[in-house]
Amino acid sequence: MGIVLGPNQYGKAEVQLVHVERGTPRHEITDLTVTTQLRGDFAATHLTGDNSAVVATDTQKNTVYALARQHGVGEPERFALLLGRHFLAAGEQVRGARVAIDLHRWHRIADHDHAFMRAGAERRTTVVTLAGDDAWVVSGLADAVVLKSTGSEFHGFPRDRYTTLAETRDRILATSVTARWRYAPTVVGGLGDLDFRGLFARIRSTMLETFATTHSLSLQQTLYAMGEQVLTRFPDEVAEVRLSMPNRHHFLVDLEPFGLDNPGVVFQAADRPYGLIEAAVVRDDGPPAGHAWDSIPGFV
Amino acid sequence: MGIVLGPNQYGKAEVQLVHVERGTPRHEITDLTVTTQLRGDFAATHLTGDNSAVVATDTQKNTVYALARQHGVGEPERFALLLGRHFLAAGEQVRGARVAIDLHRWHRIADHDHAFMRAGAERRTTVVTLAGDDAWVVSGLADAVVLKSTGSEFHGFPRDRYTTLAETRDRILATSVTARWRYAPTVVGGLGDLDFRGLFARIRSTMLETFATTHSLSLQQTLYAMGEQVLTRFPDEVAEVRLSMPNRHHFLVDLEPFGLDNPGVVFQAADRPYGLIEAAVVRDDGPPAGHAWDSIPGFV
Amino acid sequence: MGIVLGPNQYGKAEVQLVHVERGTPRHEITDLTVTTQLRGDFAATHLTGDNSAVVATDTQKNTVYALARQHGVGEPERFALLLGRHFLAAGEQVRGARVAIDLHRWHRIADHDHAFMRAGAERRTTVVTLAGDDAWVVSGLADAVVLKSTGSEFHGFPRDRYTTLAETRDRILATSVTARWRYAPTVVGGLGDLDFRGLFARIRSTMLETFATTHSLSLQQTLYAMGEQVLTRFPDEVAEVRLSMPNRHHFLVDLEPFGLDNPGVVFQAADRPYGLIEAAVVRDDGPPAGHAWDSIPGFV
Amino acid sequence: MGIVLGPNQYGKAEVQLVHVERGTPRHEITDLTVTTQLRGDFAATHLTGDNSAVVATDTQKNTVYALARQHGVGEPERFALLLGRHFLAAGEQVRGARVAIDLHRWHRIADHDHAFMRAGAERRTTVVTLAGDDAWVVSGLADAVVLKSTGSEFHGFPRDRYTTLAETRDRILATSVTARWRYAPTVVGGLGDLDFRGLFARIRSTMLETFATTHSLSLQQTLYAMGEQVLTRFPDEVAEVRLSMPNRHHFLVDLEPFGLDNPGVVFQAADRPYGLIEAAVVRDDGPPAGHAWDSIPGFV
Repeated sequence: MGIVLGPNQYGKAEVQLVHVERGTPRHEITDLTVTTQLRGDFAATHLTGDNSAVVATDTQKNTVYALARQHGVGEPERFALLLGRHFLAAGEQVRGARVAIDLHRWHRIADHDHAFMRAGAERRTTVVTLAGDDAWVVSGLADAVVLKSTGSEFHGFPRDRYTTLAETRDRILATSVTARWRYAPTVVGGLGDLDFRGLFARIRSTMLETFATTHSLSLQQTLYAMGEQVLTRFPDEVAEVRLSMPNRHHFLVDLEPFGLDNPGVVFQAADRPYGLIEAAVVRDDGPPAGHAWDSIPGFV
Repeated sequence: MGIVLGPNQYGKAEVQLVHVERGTPRHEITDLTVTTQLRGDFAATHLTGDNSAVVATDTQKNTVYALARQHGVGEPERFALLLGRHFLAAGEQVRGARVAIDLHRWHRIADHDHAFMRAGAERRTTVVTLAGDDAWVVSGLADAVVLKSTGSEFHGFPRDRYTTLAETRDRILATSVTARWRYAPTVVGGLGDLDFRGLFARIRSTMLETFATTHSLSLQQTLYAMGEQVLTRFPDEVAEVRLSMPNRHHFLVDLEPFGLDNPGVVFQAADRPYGLIEAAVVRDDGPPAGHAWDSIPGFV
Repeated sequence: MGIVLGPNQYGKAEVQLVHVERGTPRHEITDLTVTTQLRGDFAATHLTGDNSAVVATDTQKNTVYALARQHGVGEPERFALLLGRHFLAAGEQVRGARVAIDLHRWHRIADHDHAFMRAGAERRTTVVTLAGDDAWVVSGLADAVVLKSTGSEFHGFPRDRYTTLAETRDRILATSVTARWRYAPTVVGGLGDLDFRGLFARIRSTMLETFATTHSLSLQQTLYAMGEQVLTRFPDEVAEVRLSMPNRHHFLVDLEPFGLDNPGVVFQAADRPYGLIEAAVVRDDGPPAGHAWDSIPGFV
Repeated sequence: MGIVLGPNQYGKAEVQLVHVERGTPRHEITDLTVTTQLRGDFAATHLTGDNSAVVATDTQKNTVYALARQHGVGEPERFALLLGRHFLAAGEQVRGARVAIDLHRWHRIADHDHAFMRAGAERRTTVVTLAGDDAWVVSGLADAVVLKSTGSEFHGFPRDRYTTLAETRDRILATSVTARWRYAPTVVGGLGDLDFRGLFARIRSTMLETFATTHSLSLQQTLYAMGEQVLTRFPDEVAEVRLSMPNRHHFLVDLEPFGLDNPGVVFQAADRPYGLIEAAVVRDDGPPAGHAWDSIPGFV
């Protein structure tokens, strides 16, 4: 019986890059957190410490900064593709790459030319995976905290020995949406033509509006509707949507002991435990996912 | 030589309260984190475990929820005053109270009547202190992350044996503003008449705009200008401003080893260490602070 | 082209359970964070909001507490198996379950019978996956922060246009180990006979001692040696080891500008970016992993 | 009415320093987080951006590393005094300094000469304040999480309209102790002679043992006993103790709906809200505190 090296990857995580476009007096800033990881034939360093194939993680970091200067950063998806292809060309033993980028949003202070304010915890995300000649782009948003103060019910669930939860026809529904969608085109089939920025904005709006307007009988139903709407509206661009939505419970406070009613007015927001609802919404004839989801924290 | 009880306080921290105003189909939500603390003659419980004067922290939590139902929450400053006065009346041995409230901002999703999205990490804060008949209100904002991509210099500092920092005429200036201002009126003198919501909005704008428009020779200069502008524009309302502004360093990446220039384009954002600039801006003839700042984490 | 529900799961996350064994005056405490997730035929709730198959996450939480009372908690692996099997029996549409438990360690204060102190950030972990009649147990440790002050080199890596890192024959090597190992037996083949507690202790010792005694030419080499030693010493029990080891860089501070040498004495610990080294060490003829690793955040 | 600069300070926060003592093959490591802050006449930079008195925070960081190389770090209290005195001599306008150090503990892996493991979240802390010729040393421990599984009661508290809490004769008592004690000697009176390391160990033991052995009628009583014991056992060294102890509630889970009793066996650990108990224990004839507590987050 032999012991061997299994799947492996290595790289530099969370390189913090701020790029200033200062060609005109009205500056634009792009604020990214970049993680690069290489895959390939790295058995030597694992088995003997021979590093002749190991592009140092420090070199990876330098490359992120240098390519940002040479090419600008533009769309995170394109910058990730650029970085991934650079690394694939960097060493014979590099067979694949994974580049994950989080984009932090800022808006201008009072329309000032060079003063900005960070917009919130929500991030635009992308994970680009290259394996030989194949490329997959999974983009998304993370930590978008949303709440409906009505329009949410939960009932009809089975009751067993351990069930105490009351049925409700009106509750607060709150969650922090982490969504990722896989773009249908691959490198061969036209990733180069996608308007990633515009698509992000429209997909995000689609999901938020679906959250807002869906009368919800379960968080699962809301989740599915959000994914389904994206697939419906972007038939050529999006192949699959995965969502992870914690149920941030808001408990109606029992005020009866104090002689008070509480018709949906005063709630206690709870930290833990929380419900956790996760699902993929897919096309039954979509293109295969390949390595698109490898190493993305998720549910399947 | 005797050992005695010194200053002390106790209470319930971080009660998470969401209040829904649902009088009309267009809901309003208020999302608060409330901490209540009582001061007074609590020697008995410390010395002998006699709890006859100890309003339980669980009772304090219940009171927060119950009063929110009975009176609504409205402005956090007023809700804090209401809570504080309630506790002062709750027990003979309660001589003072401190109520701290953080307000988390939400905005509507696509102008929907009952769907909301959390607006960011920035919080509106207040700390109300009652001591007998006196009351002080210290309001503020926290974790407002701002950045100038130019318009900031730093030079002329002394150089000693351990100085290696180069002078600069153009750098990124970034900070996370935590500001607190003490309202001049006390309970007797007219706290009741203040428009806390409007004042918050205008003071916040004043600070952000001053940050944006001040050509900065040091973060200290920017900080002082922000405080000074608030005192200048709100002569009757604000007695004092205190600011804590970490200097979130953005280092220009040295790309020379790669044969590249870097004219203020590519920056590395650093986590730690960070500069930390803290100061009060005050009136030379302002009303005394009394207990307003007791127990507020700060610099003096 | 149709849109359909893909893989999905739901449950209650981070139920915080403290169990006190008080059969004798010398208490034992067990401090767990439990996450339960169900898999199966849950299309109805996603598509129509029909919850007739949805064992409520609140019920799942109640079940955790109730079973802890009825059966005790004992080994986290066994408690997870117990919970998983309970849920599989709870509903016809439940086809699989995933139960993840983190165990937080405490030690006694001065050998006192009922006073304890939390031991640190390191956790003992387990993820039990059930799918029909199959069961997999993946146990591990998380956030074990270790450091070698010498005995670590890094050189021989390729130098390209973007390489500036100097080679080193002596550096600090520091990492926060997250390791997971898959137990070879499945439910049919003898999970019931494993001494999980003893195995955890011996596997943990094996990994820490291997970290300590391996003269390291790369963090990859150290990682592989740690996994290999576990597979070598536990040939019947462990089928596979996966490790994720961030390289917590400690930079030798350049003191030359101050006329000082620095022969490996003064280091700056950095937060971000960090290296990230991830690999599996496997047997070339081991039992198949099945669903063991589904939904575990990882690298493959 | 004039607007003027009030109290202010500035410096470098959270410099992460690891010092390796490698004089023999058996290494010793010291892992510190150092914050330095200067006070004095810094009106010029605030009012006009004139930085001629501003020892750059980058220089402060360099100084931390350089002095660590020249003098070693030894006891954090002594290293903080060394740094503070250096800064007071560094500029005419520097009139005071505050140096805060957190020490992170490591222990050896299997008694290995140069392999270590981080010991936990608990930290040893010190804050040294210099003002002209005066010096104060406030040392402490932070984030020491402790729990008693019995030996804690809570009853006899007043019941008003909003009280629902049941009295209890047996509960879990858990808290995360942050304690700070002010050493009695000042620079003139003999700080130089204190055995800070030994004192820390004995004071810490005193507090933990008092927590363990005090039959508690309230967390306040436990807190006071901990402070009182320190003052009693260290009459010459310690002038004052301040403690901040959140009450980490562990709620007995109600299992009655499931037909189960729960005699102190199964508890739910809660995150928020939490009780917060804070007090000082002092000598009625102790030396004055002066500036010792300025800017230390606290309760008075």
